[in-house]
Amino acid sequence: MSARRALNVTREENFPAWYQAVVKEADLAEVSPVRGCMIIKPWGYGIWELIQAELDRGIKSHGVDNCYFPLFIPLSFIAREAQHVEGFAKEMAVVTHHRLKTEDGRLVPDPDAELAEPLIVRPTSETVIGDAFQRWIHSYRDLPLLINQWANVVRWEMRTRLFLRTAEFLWQEGHSAHADEADARAATMRWIELYRSFSETTLAIPVIAGEKPEHERFPGAENTYTIEAMMQDGKALQSGTSHYLGTNFASEQNIRYQSESGAMTLCHTTSYGMSTRVIGGVIMTHGDDDGLRLPPAIAPKQIVIVPILRGTDADPAIRDYCDALAARLNGASAFGKPVRAHVDHANVPSAEKRWNWIRRGVPLVLEIGQRDVAGENVTFTRRDALRTGDKVASHTQPREDFLARAVDLLGEIQGALHAQAKERLDANIRGGVTRFEDLAEHFGAGSDDDEGDTGFKGWLKVAWCKPTGAELEAVNDRLKALKLTARCAPFAQPDSLGACIFTGKPAVEEIIVARAY
Amino acid sequence: MSARRALNVTREENFPAWYQAVVKEADLAEVSPVRGCMIIKPWGYGIWELIQAELDRGIKSHGVDNCYFPLFIPLSFIAREAQHVEGFAKEMAVVTHHRLKTEDGRLVPDPDAELAEPLIVRPTSETVIGDAFQRWIHSYRDLPLLINQWANVVRWEMRTRLFLRTAEFLWQEGHSAHADEADARAATMRWIELYRSFSETTLAIPVIAGEKPEHERFPGAENTYTIEAMMQDGKALQSGTSHYLGTNFASEQNIRYQSESGAMTLCHTTSYGMSTRVIGGVIMTHGDDDGLRLPPAIAPKQIVIVPILRGTDADPAIRDYCDALAARLNGASAFGKPVRAHVDHANVPSAEKRWNWIRRGVPLVLEIGQRDVAGENVTFTRRDALRTGDKVASHTQPREDFLARAVDLLGEIQGALHAQAKERLDANIRGGVTRFEDLAEHFGAGSDDDEGDTGFKGWLKVAWCKPTGAELEAVNDRLKALKLTARCAPFAQPDSLGACIFTGKPAVEEIIVARAY
Repeated sequence: MSARRALNVTREENFPAWYQAVVKEADLAEVSPVRGCMIIKPWGYGIWELIQAELDRGIKSHGVDNCYFPLFIPLSFIAREAQHVEGFAKEMAVVTHHRLKTEDGRLVPDPDAELAEPLIVRPTSETVIGDAFQRWIHSYRDLPLLINQWANVVRWEMRTRLFLRTAEFLWQEGHSAHADEADARAATMRWIELYRSFSETTLAIPVIAGEKPEHERFPGAENTYTIEAMMQDGKALQSGTSHYLGTNFASEQNIRYQSESGAMTLCHTTSYGMSTRVIGGVIMTHGDDDGLRLPPAIAPKQIVIVPILRGTDADPAIRDYCDALAARLNGASAFGKPVRAHVDHANVPSAEKRWNWIRRGVPLVLEIGQRDVAGENVTFTRRDALRTGDKVASHTQPREDFLARAVDLLGEIQGALHAQAKERLDANIRGGVTRFEDLAEHFGAGSDDDEGDTGFKGWLKVAWCKPTGAELEAVNDRLKALKLTARCAPFAQPDSLGACIFTGKPAVEEIIVARAY
Repeated sequence: MSARRALNVTREENFPAWYQAVVKEADLAEVSPVRGCMIIKPWGYGIWELIQAELDRGIKSHGVDNCYFPLFIPLSFIAREAQHVEGFAKEMAVVTHHRLKTEDGRLVPDPDAELAEPLIVRPTSETVIGDAFQRWIHSYRDLPLLINQWANVVRWEMRTRLFLRTAEFLWQEGHSAHADEADARAATMRWIELYRSFSETTLAIPVIAGEKPEHERFPGAENTYTIEAMMQDGKALQSGTSHYLGTNFASEQNIRYQSESGAMTLCHTTSYGMSTRVIGGVIMTHGDDDGLRLPPAIAPKQIVIVPILRGTDADPAIRDYCDALAARLNGASAFGKPVRAHVDHANVPSAEKRWNWIRRGVPLVLEIGQRDVAGENVTFTRRDALRTGDKVASHTQPREDFLARAVDLLGEIQGALHAQAKERLDANIRGGVTRFEDLAEHFGAGSDDDEGDTGFKGWLKVAWCKPTGAELEAVNDRLKALKLTARCAPFAQPDSLGACIFTGKPAVEEIIVARAY
């Protein structure tokens, strides 16, 4: 096993197949009998719980309160928001009946129980939350109103991929109402900064934060901000967005407040969301050909101890040694929470157990045999540096040294995963391309076999004139023909820009162009 | 305000109206524009988050892992489970289309996007989880399989009441598969005991745990166990249930495992759930005519400090004194978590703020004025003992004494709320009724004005022969005529029983008969 890899497909051979293999072998999730919906299994859900807890803490630190709004949205609410409909109307689950009946021995929707008005399973909750804001907000004293909900949402997708694109997914959606544009804009920037720092710190995923071009905005938004992460196949993954909605929803929904001077004034609103999609980002950022690699901050088990048992009299002492080790580790704290160490006592061969945890991405896997007990040592592998060449790198260390160092080690692994991903991101964003032909060549124009294209392409930073309307459409069509999208205009912009790569006009900003999930 | 009550309706005047007033005045939840669905507001959701965290800890302590299963269930899954359909078929939300289109300027379900098979919004997940169990379980080594999910579920209800009965609600549903009946039965009892102890300890709600009679079982269950709480109007609230499902679901869904001897054997399964309904139980157990009273363990804010400001130079010192007090309180721990103390700096008159927090049920409300600062005192009210007669009872104490005592005080309040409810429960379960006429009289037979009936009736413990089939139906009809139900046969049974109150046959157990939510 040590020379071969733990998965039967490598990233280089077939990245999409490798992704599916990791999801399966790390036991994260599976497709459900309902088309496009996933079952998130305990290991995958454990990661989500840690993501939730930490992101929730971050959101609340800005004075945001959690609420819960209905799963269903009346059709009329959706219809009211013209722009919003454009963006979502095509892909929603529609509830039309509220009862089943048995007819000719078959269970069917009861025609007598057809709803007068169909209900939509929420694709997002702007409309129904806006309606509540309109009731809740009376005076400037009620502002800003900052709320968030953790919920499931549904967007009917034809081609689904576990975590990345599923009909149902889990997310948080934050919504806020403000007295004026400046306050709402400042909040919008706070949310995207929260996502950026959460992604870098907790997920160990370096990102580029910036603004989406006009045609990639959230339906109804004035501005959409995004964090974009680079997967190991060079594609971009949009990992969190924050929207300044101006007064668009407020005017449709009559969200007004009485100002100090007594005038009735429209609120400015924002929304922002991050979803289970980021688990796909974790896989494609950190995974390797032996499976998942988890940043310790989101590893449901950070340290797994596998006793090597021989069916001899020595076994009980080995088990005890492992249990005592776990107890001491669990008494310590890492990332502000108790360490999550676990002894795997399952009745399964120890090599199998070890590889099981390696595939699942456990940061530190310890194997404890009779010799370790006798010498008061521990033998472990680091998931961030599993192999030296093809060989698995095991380290043996005095137990007390390991215990003294374990929390630091978890921090080191968190840092190392981030550093590896950052190095890849930095090395694979190229600038200096000023001609569209060079851009096309960089991304292998002509090759239209997306899935089979294993050449790593990275992202390009190019200057553009920030076109709008028909001009933007033309640019977008040219990019689309290369399976590319304009991901964002990074917040960090260069001092000087040349000509627009698309139009030759003077450029106004630099954007990132990439293939994307 | 001190002589009057904070709500404009008392429990005695009109209990259902009082309930609605508490939900509104404590800002817990509101009806949404979608019939039967509720919006859980920040204060209500904050309570739910604390309930979730503590119950989740309890569930996980039994080795249960959280997962997530799809919102939608294929119609065929529901149809497969005959008994299950009987119980749920009449009240489900049915998704029939996956797209909307604009027709004559109106948004309608797109006829071209009708689903081949309708999808049901889960009323509970036995069928879809059983299907996964059938895939996941291979050998005895995979058992027991213990999973849980936190989710929203939908049961179309015609008459809804916030928290108590809504079309959509939030809950946890645990599901487990076991190698044999004994193991599954032991687990079923562990789940109900978990609910019992959670209710008593965390919610401060004393309950009677027992078994549901046959006709009140979960559809498809062999046995259903319940915890029943007594509301202040004497009605019972079923607050958590645990089901031994035998091999009923396993045989429909082919959930089998290979035993050590190699035989393919059906699993025995269980399920158990507790929902946002318990928040209704908290309100109706602990609330009084001044609003909600929250057990400190589930109070989003346990201690609120209201500065009494006069618009003078003394104000900043008062604010600082309050902030310093909160910081010291928040440094302490209660119920295993940091104390949740908060200074209300809102620009609102202090009396209004104080009553706002009292109505919301905050266990300790402090009012700090210039005199308190000068004397290094605090002045506070205890929500569990707000008044002496009609007067609000304020206590002034040296700050250091209060700080030294605050955590104990929270524990005392938690205990006092439980003790008050326990005393009421004990005083209002009556035994010794052996004739049906006496039972009927006790519950005011003849009065069919349920809502207006303010006489407190409590519960009766009566002996019965545990009838089945037609005999049970007859008993149930007689109870129904009095708006009564057989709640459960308590686990704690008397040593001797007389004759069945319904049939005159020898009794086999004692049951609780009550009006119920």
